[in-house]
Amino acid sequence: ADTKKIAILPGDGIGPEVIAEAVKVLKKTEELFGYKFETESNLFGGIAIDEKGTPLPQETLEMCKRADAVLLGAVGGPKWDNNPKELRPETGLLGIRKALGLFSNIRPAVIFDCLKEASTLKPEVLEGTDLIVVRELTGGIYFGEKFRRDTDNGQEAVDTCVYNVKEVERIVHQAFQIARTRRKKLCSVDKANVLETSRLWRETVNRIAPEYPDVELEHVLVDNCAMQLLRRPSSFDVIVTENMFGDILSDEAAMLTGSIGMLSSASLGEGSFGLYEPVHGSAPDIAGQGIANPIATILSVALMFKLSFNYQEAGDVIENAVKNVLDAGHRTGDIAVDKSKAIGTTAMGDLIVAAM
Amino acid sequence: ADTKKIAILPGDGIGPEVIAEAVKVLKKTEELFGYKFETESNLFGGIAIDEKGTPLPQETLEMCKRADAVLLGAVGGPKWDNNPKELRPETGLLGIRKALGLFSNIRPAVIFDCLKEASTLKPEVLEGTDLIVVRELTGGIYFGEKFRRDTDNGQEAVDTCVYNVKEVERIVHQAFQIARTRRKKLCSVDKANVLETSRLWRETVNRIAPEYPDVELEHVLVDNCAMQLLRRPSSFDVIVTENMFGDILSDEAAMLTGSIGMLSSASLGEGSFGLYEPVHGSAPDIAGQGIANPIATILSVALMFKLSFNYQEAGDVIENAVKNVLDAGHRTGDIAVDKSKAIGTTAMGDLIVAAM
Ligand SMILES: CC(C)[C@H](C(=O)O)[C@@H](O)C(=O)O
Ligand SMILES: CC(C)[C@H](C(=O)O)[C@@H](O)C(=O)O
Repeated sequence: ADTKKIAILPGDGIGPEVIAEAVKVLKKTEELFGYKFETESNLFGGIAIDEKGTPLPQETLEMCKRADAVLLGAVGGPKWDNNPKELRPETGLLGIRKALGLFSNIRPAVIFDCLKEASTLKPEVLEGTDLIVVRELTGGIYFGEKFRRDTDNGQEAVDTCVYNVKEVERIVHQAFQIARTRRKKLCSVDKANVLETSRLWRETVNRIAPEYPDVELEHVLVDNCAMQLLRRPSSFDVIVTENMFGDILSDEAAMLTGSIGMLSSASLGEGSFGLYEPVHGSAPDIAGQGIANPIATILSVALMFKLSFNYQEAGDVIENAVKNVLDAGHRTGDIAVDKSKAIGTTAMGDLIVAAM
Repeated sequence: ADTKKIAILPGDGIGPEVIAEAVKVLKKTEELFGYKFETESNLFGGIAIDEKGTPLPQETLEMCKRADAVLLGAVGGPKWDNNPKELRPETGLLGIRKALGLFSNIRPAVIFDCLKEASTLKPEVLEGTDLIVVRELTGGIYFGEKFRRDTDNGQEAVDTCVYNVKEVERIVHQAFQIARTRRKKLCSVDKANVLETSRLWRETVNRIAPEYPDVELEHVLVDNCAMQLLRRPSSFDVIVTENMFGDILSDEAAMLTGSIGMLSSASLGEGSFGLYEPVHGSAPDIAGQGIANPIATILSVALMFKLSFNYQEAGDVIENAVKNVLDAGHRTGDIAVDKSKAIGTTAMGDLIVAAM
C-alpha cells in the first residue's frame, strides 16, 4: 500500500498528551493492516506563538500542505487570551482553515451508551440521537471585511457576512451526499426572514435539491433550530448551515449528547484532504497531569481513515476497540462515575490499542 | 390616576384570541385598582398585509406612537411566508422595533412548577433556573446594509453587522441595572475571538463595568454560551448580547424551561415606553378554535404594568392569579397532561380574572 503522510499538530494544553495516544493507534494500524504512515509534527497555536512568534508558522503550513491529512490536538489557553489578534491561537485556526481550503466542518453528535446519563437531557428525549452538523467553514462573517470607524455615536465596528453561490453549492452538495449515506434527511438552517446571505443560501439549496430526490429536505430558521435541537434531537439526521450558525449549533448539539469529551470532527476541502481534531478544547486546567481522555482524538483517527483514506475497516476496528474498552468499564476521570477508579491517558490509549 | 393609553395589535393566528383575554385583565385591573386604560386597536402583520397592503400601516404606527405602551398578540403564518420581503409580517416586526426605538428585548426564562416535567431537561438540572436574556434589538446584522452583486463565483450576497459605542452602552447599562435588581450576575455574550463588533462590545462592557461594582460580570463566547445554557441553566442570572446572538440564545433559553407557552417579553426604548408580547408565535394550526393558551399574553400585561407603568402591585396580582389558577389544576390543551380535561382560551382568561 502507498504511504500516507500525516501532519501532526499537538498544539496546547492536553493536545500533546491525547495526540501521543492517537499516534500509538496509527502504529498499531500499520501492524494490523500493513498500511504505512509517515508522520511529521510541528508547532501550532499558543506554543507556536511562544516559540515562533506566530500561531501558524510558515513551515507548519508547508508541512500540512505536503500531507494527505492533518491530525490536530487542541489549541489555546488563558496565557494567550489577551494577546492582540495576530498573536492568538484562534487566529492560527482560522488561518489554517482558509490556507488549506477546509470549507466544510463535519461534527457528528452521537450518544455513547455509557454516557447517556451524563447528558442534562432526559434519556428518553436523547434516545436514538445520531446527527451530523455540516458547517461551512471558510466564508460568512468570519472572513468578511472587518473594520472600525468614528461616528457621532463613538467608534463603530463593522463585520461583513458574505457568501457567493459557489461557496453555498459546494457545502450543500456535500451535505446532501452525506445525508444519502445515512437516514436521508437534510435540515438546512438559515435566517432567511432577515438576512440576504440566508436568502441566497435558501435559494441555492432549493435549486440543488431536485438533484437529490431521495433526500428529504427541510428549512429551519436558526432560532427555531436552537429550540428544536433541545426538543427533538433524535429527529435530526444531517444539518447544514453557514459558518456562524454552525459554530453555535454544533456546540449546542455536542453538549446535548453529554458525550462532548468523546466527539471527533473533520474539516474537509476539495478531494480527500482533511484536518481531524477532537471537539473538546485544550483543557489547560488538567494539562500535563496525564488524566486527559484520549478517546475523541483516537476517534478522530478513525474518522480520518474513513473520510480521507477510505480505510473503512481500519476505522471500524478503532471504533469497536473504543466501544469494547468502554463496555469493559474502563473510564478516564472526565467520564468516570466512580472517580477513584479512573484510569489515565496512557492507560486508556494502551487498552484501546490492545483491543484493536 | 392618569389614563394610560395602550395600543393593541392583535395580529394573526391565535393573536386576537389571546389578546381578548388580556383585555379582560386590563378591565379587571381598572375595577380593582381604580386605574384608567384607554385602548385602541389596529391592524399589524399578515392581516395588515391583506387589508392594507403593508405589514405596518402608517396609522398603526401613529397609534403606537401616541400610546404609553403597546400590547402585541402574534404575527405571521404560512399564508405570507413566500411573499416578497416588504409584504412579510416579520418586516412589520422589524419595522416597528426600529420606528419605536425599541432597542432592548427582555426575555425572562422561568420555570413554572406545574410545567417542570414539560422540559426535555432533567428536573434536577432545571431546578432554580430563573434567567433573563437582554437582547439588543435595533442594531447588528439585522439592520446593516444588505445587497447582492455578481461575481465570478455567481451571485454574492452581503449582510453587514454594525454596532457603535452608544448602541452598546445603552443596552449594557440597562442589563447591569436589571442585574442589580436580581442576583447581581451579568453574563455578556459575544464572539470577540472572531468579530470586530464583538471586540467593541466587550471593550465597552469592560469600560462600563466599574460603574456597577456590585454586579459580578463574566464574558462568555456565544458557542460556549449555547452549551452552558444546557449544562448549567440555573447558574445564569442576566445575559446581555447583541441582536443575532440574542435571537438564538433567547429561544434556546425559552425552550429549555419547557414553559414556552407561558413566557412573556418586553421590548423597551428610552424612557418607560415598551411593547409587550408573548414569546410563542401565532400558531396558525390552532387559530380560531378557542383552545390557545392566553397566559403568556396575560403575563405580558403584568410585565407592562411593572416595567412601563410602575404598577408593581397590579402586576403581582396578575402573576399570583395565574399561579393560583394553575395550582388549582386548570390547564389549556398545550399544557394539560390529561388533554380531555383541558379548558379553552376564554375559560382560562375568565378563571384568571376571577382569581385576581
Ligand atoms: C476558536 C474559534 C475561532 C473557533 C470557531 O469559532 O470557529 C471554534 O469555536 C470552533 O468552533 O472551532
Ligand atoms: C420574526 C423574526 C424577524 C424575529 C427576530 O429574529 O427578531 C423573531 O425571531 C423574534 O425573535 O422576535
